[in-house]
Amino acid sequence: MSLITGHNFIGGQRSAAGTVIVKSVDASTGEDLPYDFQQATAQEVDDASQAAHTAFLGYRTLSAPRKAEFLEAIAEELEALDDEFIGLVCRETALPAARIQGERARTSGQMRLFAEVLRRGDFYGARIDRALPLRQPLPRPDLRQYRTAIGPVAVFGASNFPLAFSTAGGDTASALAAGCPVVFKAHSGHMATAEQVANAIIRAAQRTGMPAGVFNMIYGSGVGEALVKHPLIKAVGFTGSLKGGRALCDMAAARPEPIPVFAEMSSINPVVILPRALSLRADSIATQLAASVVQGCGQFCTNPGLVVGIHSDAFTAFQAEVARLIDDQPAQTMLNAGTLRSYAAGLQHLHAHPGIHHLAGSDQQGRQAQPQLFKADVTLLLEGDKVLQEEVFGPNSIFIEVADPEQLNAAIAALHGQLTATLIGELEDLETFAQLTPLLETKVGRILVNGYPTGVEVCDAMVHGGPYPATSDSRGTSVGTLSIDRFLRPVCFQNYPDALLPDALKNANPLNITRLVDGCHTRDSVRIPDA
Amino acid sequence: MSLITGHNFIGGQRSAAGTVIVKSVDASTGEDLPYDFQQATAQEVDDASQAAHTAFLGYRTLSAPRKAEFLEAIAEELEALDDEFIGLVCRETALPAARIQGERARTSGQMRLFAEVLRRGDFYGARIDRALPLRQPLPRPDLRQYRTAIGPVAVFGASNFPLAFSTAGGDTASALAAGCPVVFKAHSGHMATAEQVANAIIRAAQRTGMPAGVFNMIYGSGVGEALVKHPLIKAVGFTGSLKGGRALCDMAAARPEPIPVFAEMSSINPVVILPRALSLRADSIATQLAASVVQGCGQFCTNPGLVVGIHSDAFTAFQAEVARLIDDQPAQTMLNAGTLRSYAAGLQHLHAHPGIHHLAGSDQQGRQAQPQLFKADVTLLLEGDKVLQEEVFGPNSIFIEVADPEQLNAAIAALHGQLTATLIGELEDLETFAQLTPLLETKVGRILVNGYPTGVEVCDAMVHGGPYPATSDSRGTSVGTLSIDRFLRPVCFQNYPDALLPDALKNANPLNITRLVDGCHTRDSVRIPDA
Repeated sequence: MSLITGHNFIGGQRSAAGTVIVKSVDASTGEDLPYDFQQATAQEVDDASQAAHTAFLGYRTLSAPRKAEFLEAIAEELEALDDEFIGLVCRETALPAARIQGERARTSGQMRLFAEVLRRGDFYGARIDRALPLRQPLPRPDLRQYRTAIGPVAVFGASNFPLAFSTAGGDTASALAAGCPVVFKAHSGHMATAEQVANAIIRAAQRTGMPAGVFNMIYGSGVGEALVKHPLIKAVGFTGSLKGGRALCDMAAARPEPIPVFAEMSSINPVVILPRALSLRADSIATQLAASVVQGCGQFCTNPGLVVGIHSDAFTAFQAEVARLIDDQPAQTMLNAGTLRSYAAGLQHLHAHPGIHHLAGSDQQGRQAQPQLFKADVTLLLEGDKVLQEEVFGPNSIFIEVADPEQLNAAIAALHGQLTATLIGELEDLETFAQLTPLLETKVGRILVNGYPTGVEVCDAMVHGGPYPATSDSRGTSVGTLSIDRFLRPVCFQNYPDALLPDALKNANPLNITRLVDGCHTRDSVRIPDA
Repeated sequence: MSLITGHNFIGGQRSAAGTVIVKSVDASTGEDLPYDFQQATAQEVDDASQAAHTAFLGYRTLSAPRKAEFLEAIAEELEALDDEFIGLVCRETALPAARIQGERARTSGQMRLFAEVLRRGDFYGARIDRALPLRQPLPRPDLRQYRTAIGPVAVFGASNFPLAFSTAGGDTASALAAGCPVVFKAHSGHMATAEQVANAIIRAAQRTGMPAGVFNMIYGSGVGEALVKHPLIKAVGFTGSLKGGRALCDMAAARPEPIPVFAEMSSINPVVILPRALSLRADSIATQLAASVVQGCGQFCTNPGLVVGIHSDAFTAFQAEVARLIDDQPAQTMLNAGTLRSYAAGLQHLHAHPGIHHLAGSDQQGRQAQPQLFKADVTLLLEGDKVLQEEVFGPNSIFIEVADPEQLNAAIAALHGQLTATLIGELEDLETFAQLTPLLETKVGRILVNGYPTGVEVCDAMVHGGPYPATSDSRGTSVGTLSIDRFLRPVCFQNYPDALLPDALKNANPLNITRLVDGCHTRDSVRIPDA
């Protein structure tokens, strides 16, 4: 493990120009860790953005295999971090070592997956329409399109995945893969972890010969605003609260030059329990659901926060069983004191609401989070009650009982945008309630059948996105290879000499990628008839 | 031609609930045309949005071939409009009949191209990652992703293309192809044209059995704000001024649920004249450039508004020749009185600027636009002068002379975002100035060699987009088949029974489309091993 200096990472150098010190704490004890982190000054925020911009011009045009080498080197450097590092992450986050080891594997696997994407080359979206010199009434010129990096990206990581959604997480990986240098705002909840990971990225950049400034990191509170407003920053990736994400979106939209923000924010991830499944396997559903609610102390964006079922004796019994299981779950330590405070405040809102009843869970007090279960009147959902649709981040869930299938449709239609929705049902249920799928499609980024939404696979087909307030732009995802699209923009070349075209668009197809040529997908080279 | 009633188009019906009448005028005489258009009331804006939302749920899930039939029927209905219609468009816009006939062919061709896209199926972006039940430490579920419609889209057309960028223009075509119903705000400059085109769309919708409300149109000034703020509208397409586009972006960003806006706004489309080309063919470049500047009275988003060359006797002579040609060009009638007023005001700003000198053109007065040529000091560009980078919509251009190749780079680097940039050069020039291409790539949506930016081909490879202020989101295009991406969002299905998946994701690949299956592009069906 490297020495932790707490200095900002700017253009391949370390910088400590300021006077404000911020501290990281032991998540279990609340005690300060023995490191001083230097809050970035306004000049350092500017320097970091300038460094990213300077790196952009060179990094953007590096070949895809060269960028892939960089991502793979990051993966190797992450994997080379030792047990002391794992211990440090556990100390800053109160997450168990096995979880951190698994998360590290996910993080390095994600870097390697993006290296594959770079070599596969479909991210280019290469399209070629050959000239039609004899077309009437006007000839068509030769037109070729590919996608290239949008520019330096500001990334704000999440507290709940100190590796996979943080310094070297999905936003950083997809931005770097797209050809965008990154300025990362270190999360206050795990700054020592962030420093170790940033060092790993810098080592990887150095040994693969990347431009200085391809990755920068700044510490401190309040530095994010200056970063998002910096004219050289061209896009933002964020994972965190609705309040924080919306604030960044508003700042980005109000800039002289507005820039796109992908903020993954708030989701209550409804789980619909269908009748036939309930009649056949209520106990196993109850066990699995309770386990999903409390997994990782409920600190997942995809935690099942709302459970919907149709009124019946079986559903009443099912609620009682889940309540019994939740009552049996132990308290757990949360990521940090702020998260625990927010959880307690969220529970107070639920307790205070006349339409919401407490079903299970010990009084929320002390230094740990108590798992909780509530039940809300369906009219709250139908009438747009805000408390019900607000994510309470932590190990709790809310039951909703609908009168009949018609009211189930109405309840689903009343939901805000979500990351996920889950149907628990037998094939017979899914056919009977077939109308739920098209309805849910308009509400969520991912629909699951007979699974639980916690656990987000990193692959080509994953969508970790969804309509507002799940994210700020339903057209994106922050997990999976499609996430690279957020940081790419198309450029078209008209009548360009072959030698001056980017490799992705040259006649000979030197990258051997699939391209859309005159409307057909092909890896063939492009033949240009003699003029 | 249908009777023009001036009533709003809402959910397949006509509606005239308001009392405010707006008039369309003869663009050449300024006289009112004999039609009364009913400005939509707040209730009618709501009704139109509700109608689009109701249509959405059915239209979104129609098969791609069914949507293609609709688009093709629109193309046929547009082509069936008679000479009286062409005369009406000419009267409202002062554009010549041959241009309108060509633009109609482009508009119907665009509908047919999107029908092809629907049948080709790559717009689905279908991705399948099969389950890995034996993977350690955890199995991978079956995950499948496709893209589906974002929701009802509000479209604001442009004045300068009364067909191709208006009622049935590119934004409408791409939204309908994506599966998004449209609420179109009729452009005040050609409301009678808009009504005829809307009638054609409605006839096409009726004869292909589309849901009522798949296309709606409202008249009036000030109704756009209520439309963009309506909670059931999920995206916006706009072509017009920077001021108008930015206002819509700001409104959309400030909604309780922010929505994406693609606004194509302002571009001065720099043309760089390189030395060797100048030495070989100055006269033909001058002739072509002057023709491009005054073509269609300069009323194109891609009009070449800035011409950059390196100081030399040849460039001085070239400027004189272009000035001579511009002085010879006749005045032309603009689209409407507002456009002429804006042009005159823009010219006044240029005349009043101490760093900008007038090279050619008669005094701007009377009812027509006089072609103009100016020259600006390069320091204005380098120091970020605003007047220089503001689009003056009309038949004029500004010369900039740089001292040397180094200053040329600096001048290009100082440009704001643009729709296009053009290099006029011999192969030798393009090699000598090879650094210009990567620099221009970061500034523009389309780079041309030895062509002129006016004339935007509708095809797969076109990009009519670019960094702000050319558009509000450099990741999009409003011309070409990629424009459909603006109105699509990904949805992922996890462990879904095959029968309940959308056709694009079923094992058997019934649509016979190319899909990304376990990281490989294929049209093969997906085989699932027995459990």
